[in-house]
Amino acid sequence: MDLPTLEDIRQAEARIRGSILRTPLLQSSHLAERVGADSLLLKAECLQQTGSFKFRGASNAAARHLAERPGRGILTFSSGNHAAALARAGRERGLPVTVVMPQDAPEVKRRATEGYGARVILYDRDEQSREALGAELAEREGLDVIPPYDHSWIIAGAATCGLEISECRPDVVAVCLGGGGLLAGVALALTELDPAVRVYGVEPAAGNDGERSFQSGTLQTVSNPKTLADGAMTPSLGQRNWEIIRNRVTGIVSVTDEELFEAMWLCWTRLNLMVEPTGALALAGLLTGRVPAGPRTAVILTGGNCDPAPLIDWGRSRGLV
Amino acid sequence: MDLPTLEDIRQAEARIRGSILRTPLLQSSHLAERVGADSLLLKAECLQQTGSFKFRGASNAAARHLAERPGRGILTFSSGNHAAALARAGRERGLPVTVVMPQDAPEVKRRATEGYGARVILYDRDEQSREALGAELAEREGLDVIPPYDHSWIIAGAATCGLEISECRPDVVAVCLGGGGLLAGVALALTELDPAVRVYGVEPAAGNDGERSFQSGTLQTVSNPKTLADGAMTPSLGQRNWEIIRNRVTGIVSVTDEELFEAMWLCWTRLNLMVEPTGALALAGLLTGRVPAGPRTAVILTGGNCDPAPLIDWGRSRGLV
Repeated sequence: MDLPTLEDIRQAEARIRGSILRTPLLQSSHLAERVGADSLLLKAECLQQTGSFKFRGASNAAARHLAERPGRGILTFSSGNHAAALARAGRERGLPVTVVMPQDAPEVKRRATEGYGARVILYDRDEQSREALGAELAEREGLDVIPPYDHSWIIAGAATCGLEISECRPDVVAVCLGGGGLLAGVALALTELDPAVRVYGVEPAAGNDGERSFQSGTLQTVSNPKTLADGAMTPSLGQRNWEIIRNRVTGIVSVTDEELFEAMWLCWTRLNLMVEPTGALALAGLLTGRVPAGPRTAVILTGGNCDPAPLIDWGRSRGLV
Repeated sequence: MDLPTLEDIRQAEARIRGSILRTPLLQSSHLAERVGADSLLLKAECLQQTGSFKFRGASNAAARHLAERPGRGILTFSSGNHAAALARAGRERGLPVTVVMPQDAPEVKRRATEGYGARVILYDRDEQSREALGAELAEREGLDVIPPYDHSWIIAGAATCGLEISECRPDVVAVCLGGGGLLAGVALALTELDPAVRVYGVEPAAGNDGERSFQSGTLQTVSNPKTLADGAMTPSLGQRNWEIIRNRVTGIVSVTDEELFEAMWLCWTRLNLMVEPTGALALAGLLTGRVPAGPRTAVILTGGNCDPAPLIDWGRSRGLV
């Protein structure tokens, strides 16, 4: 299994530096107090190009693909942030991108992906397998498949977020967990630089395959989890991601949708940031106390792309506005 | 009249570097297209400590006061972002801060200011003059008054935002305008570094004293303007601010509350940022075309502290959510 090294992550950082935004580490004394930390640093990846951390891995993958397989286009499967990120990374480097996306993907995500110049192939979730459709297309057209998380280039790109966080020398770092691209990359970068740092993953309670995998020591799966956190509905961690996570991560916990709303609301009203449900997982883990805060605690707010209506309705139903 | 110089601004930058957040310059190809620029850079001061650019001037003023008038506390008048910013800057440097605030100031602003450890003195707008009350208090207790914008230290601190923007070498920069602390500072910093840059101020239409001052060449006033942009309800520009603005600024335009809502909505849904009405003035000026965009255009989103309910209701009434 090809796993990235710290050197790969450093090279990724140099490769994508000119494309990505070096997102700010925000501070909030109010939130620090709420989670029981002396200081809480919030890495605002929801401000990253295309609105999520996915642009880091996508940029690294597009650049490496272009260098190693010139003249060949790429294909991916995604209805979410990875699709838009790879579409834009491809456009920046003149690399044709095809995205296989379910017919019922949110209109706004499809338009964003097409807006960045990618070709979108729609399929019927009930009738077709995206893997079979993608493999057939890739074979016929000579495209290479870049998956959304289980890939060394994607992990190394996501890990550059960990390099940036390491500069604030945290004791504890909380990261959301879906397929494990970000958690694996960030845990690898951080623990290589400081073996004492404690890195936690946070999942939706309805799809806590990672938590169960970590407790049992073997990779678990979940089918069709129902959760607000649409970016963390993956059936299981990737093989590469799991291999890194089991060795580098201190713990994995889970939170409910109600706890996600509370975290999103605090981001909005205390930090002036719109954070999507998946992007608020890690903060929710800290707020509930399931991730034990350290004196210097950092948390990644991973993305901001979502329909604001559910959050508004939640706030209204709680009498908050 | 003591006006700051480029050297004062550089010294302010060195003085406050460890306290302020170096806010990101976000990019949006969608918004760039909407305003007719090749690239649009959005300086997210709504992410600054205390949620607005005011923390820059407050930090500089607190530091200089402490060096020049040790042992004396400070007093200011404000019901808004300057109050919270000075309260926090004072706390960081162990400097006692008193804020004279109207009884009907938003509860959330009063609590934020008190939360940062300032003493808040409430007064009745209809019965008392804040200037008389403040002057009497300052005299009795040996405090020095730091006004919200008409002060060289405040202007130099705000101008550090201009130094940061200058690094992206913009052709056009749009800035909101209330009392003129930010516009004066930013215009001074930018035109000192590049005399060809065009800096515009943007005001609420209901309180367009700055626009009228600029057109007539003499300082105009307005009384009790009714506008969503509560941070730009100042009766007139400060004397120092006007002196700089008349010589450094290319034009001043105004926008309606409806145009502010549109700009706030775009910030929320396209940038994942909550921007308060005053903070969206400059972007609204560009979106309406009243500020002519250049190839490289920058805009400051100055603050994010507001009740979200009016924006939600506006979005709902337009069928946007």
